[in-house]
Amino acid sequence: MPDRLGPPLTTPVFDRLALIGLGLIGSSLARVARQKNLARHIVAIDASEDVRSRVSELKLADTVTGDVTDGVRNADCVILCVPVGACGSVAEAMQAGLKQGAIISDVGSVKGSIVAQVEPYIPEGVHFVPAHPVAGTEQSGPDAGFPTLFLNRWCILTPPEGQDPQAVARTRAFWEGAGSMVEEMSPAHHDLVLAITSHLPHLIAYNIVGTAADLEAVTQSEVIKFSAGGFRDFTRIAASDPTMWRDVFLNNKDAVLEMLGRFTEDLSALQRAIRYGDGEALFNHFTRTRAIRRSIIEIGQDSAAPDFGRQPKNGNQ
Amino acid sequence: MPDRLGPPLTTPVFDRLALIGLGLIGSSLARVARQKNLARHIVAIDASEDVRSRVSELKLADTVTGDVTDGVRNADCVILCVPVGACGSVAEAMQAGLKQGAIISDVGSVKGSIVAQVEPYIPEGVHFVPAHPVAGTEQSGPDAGFPTLFLNRWCILTPPEGQDPQAVARTRAFWEGAGSMVEEMSPAHHDLVLAITSHLPHLIAYNIVGTAADLEAVTQSEVIKFSAGGFRDFTRIAASDPTMWRDVFLNNKDAVLEMLGRFTEDLSALQRAIRYGDGEALFNHFTRTRAIRRSIIEIGQDSAAPDFGRQPKNGNQ
Repeated sequence: MPDRLGPPLTTPVFDRLALIGLGLIGSSLARVARQKNLARHIVAIDASEDVRSRVSELKLADTVTGDVTDGVRNADCVILCVPVGACGSVAEAMQAGLKQGAIISDVGSVKGSIVAQVEPYIPEGVHFVPAHPVAGTEQSGPDAGFPTLFLNRWCILTPPEGQDPQAVARTRAFWEGAGSMVEEMSPAHHDLVLAITSHLPHLIAYNIVGTAADLEAVTQSEVIKFSAGGFRDFTRIAASDPTMWRDVFLNNKDAVLEMLGRFTEDLSALQRAIRYGDGEALFNHFTRTRAIRRSIIEIGQDSAAPDFGRQPKNGNQ
Repeated sequence: MPDRLGPPLTTPVFDRLALIGLGLIGSSLARVARQKNLARHIVAIDASEDVRSRVSELKLADTVTGDVTDGVRNADCVILCVPVGACGSVAEAMQAGLKQGAIISDVGSVKGSIVAQVEPYIPEGVHFVPAHPVAGTEQSGPDAGFPTLFLNRWCILTPPEGQDPQAVARTRAFWEGAGSMVEEMSPAHHDLVLAITSHLPHLIAYNIVGTAADLEAVTQSEVIKFSAGGFRDFTRIAASDPTMWRDVFLNNKDAVLEMLGRFTEDLSALQRAIRYGDGEALFNHFTRTRAIRRSIIEIGQDSAAPDFGRQPKNGNQ
């Protein structure tokens, strides 16, 4: 598995690429698109004046604008990098500017709802290839992005049935150029898979950090001081962008509630084992979960270093 | 805050230090005790022949033995580094070998139960100063240890009321020599604090990894491939030692059930907000949890680098 981005492409995948929303994901796309020559001309579209001026300072794009309709004009590819809940209104705004043959894509963490929101605004002769790069950090904004964010991470495409194979192939080529591995599935299956691998973990993390903050018998300062016992791991994803995550839960309700129901049932079983002192049940449960960690490390989706490599074993003596 | 171990002490804290159990914690103590000259002579006691031969190969101790009674003879300090559930029987076995004035300590993640198990076997004239270094990784065994494991981590002492201040001061000096910051509290308060900062996070992590493994509609290979969306964070602590964690839950039942009850109540509230589409409640909850992350980073208990620094922003382009 490559550990760095390869050389720039000799021919860009797209002539004109418009990115809407220059947060962590959008600005990382701008950076890798520039570095890998994935597009000849990059248009950055953002509603926030602060973001636009920062994007200009960082020289992340060739054109910077706040006008969606104007910004997408003549683009071969438009990628929506806004929170899930904003996709419908952005799609409506861009409709009038889209050129024939353009590819519309997005990076949303939910796919069923985005398809429902965006598809009505896709004109005849324009291709819609929804995408979700399974990559990110807990940080937000144009300064948080970096060009290797997508390197060795999966990007899931959920093209509608019968979508133009050429449009799907170019979208795939774009993500592969960014360093990703690409897989295709239906929006419904995507939403189920991500409910367990991403949405539920975030909900649980947000929840336990809230529970800890509300205790009376344990002070907040104790929670913080003694967080290295495990708690601090959860605080990282509980520091993720609140708007993005509110929208994820509002837009993937059914799958999240389904996974949450299973999680709660399983937790009740562990709770019962603790209450009745069933050491064997606990031991068996704790043993089988080790194998999954091993597999994740084997396929390169996490660091093999203990403690995520936070504390170098030999580096700081 | 120092980022490396200081120079060796000119005078060791203990003349003869006996470590019982040479896993991650015990072997890290042996390493730092040697490197920092915290003890003149180190005795390694382990019931496993495999562990003993590995400890000898790694030259972690001056004396290596499987005999507890004999191993603790003439030791100024004996530290139990075995799973919580094994402390009572180990204490019974060492009783006959202990010298007058010796300090007995331990590293268990639960304190009330260890005090109850060990105290009956502490002879008159021997000092018992229970300790818990809040440090670790998900790995186990004598090869997993490293000398900086305790650096900048808190170690909690729970000395019984009226314990000899000299014995407490020497135990404190030992842990400070290992790079730790030391705090004292009662065993009951310790068990409550750790229930939220360590025990509940482990239970939740073990649980969600189990839930994911049992799904029918999402394959195990999908769970593994798309784990970078958040799930992989939980698999790290769910890969921790099953025996150790079984014993923690069996021996801190009341505090864990109390925290679990609160966690479940809070989760029901979030679940209800998702079901009824209450975006404001979700947004408010997700906003207040960010501050805790910031505080943990500010006091040096976690890395400020995004994604725990797993993926260097500029290091691998």
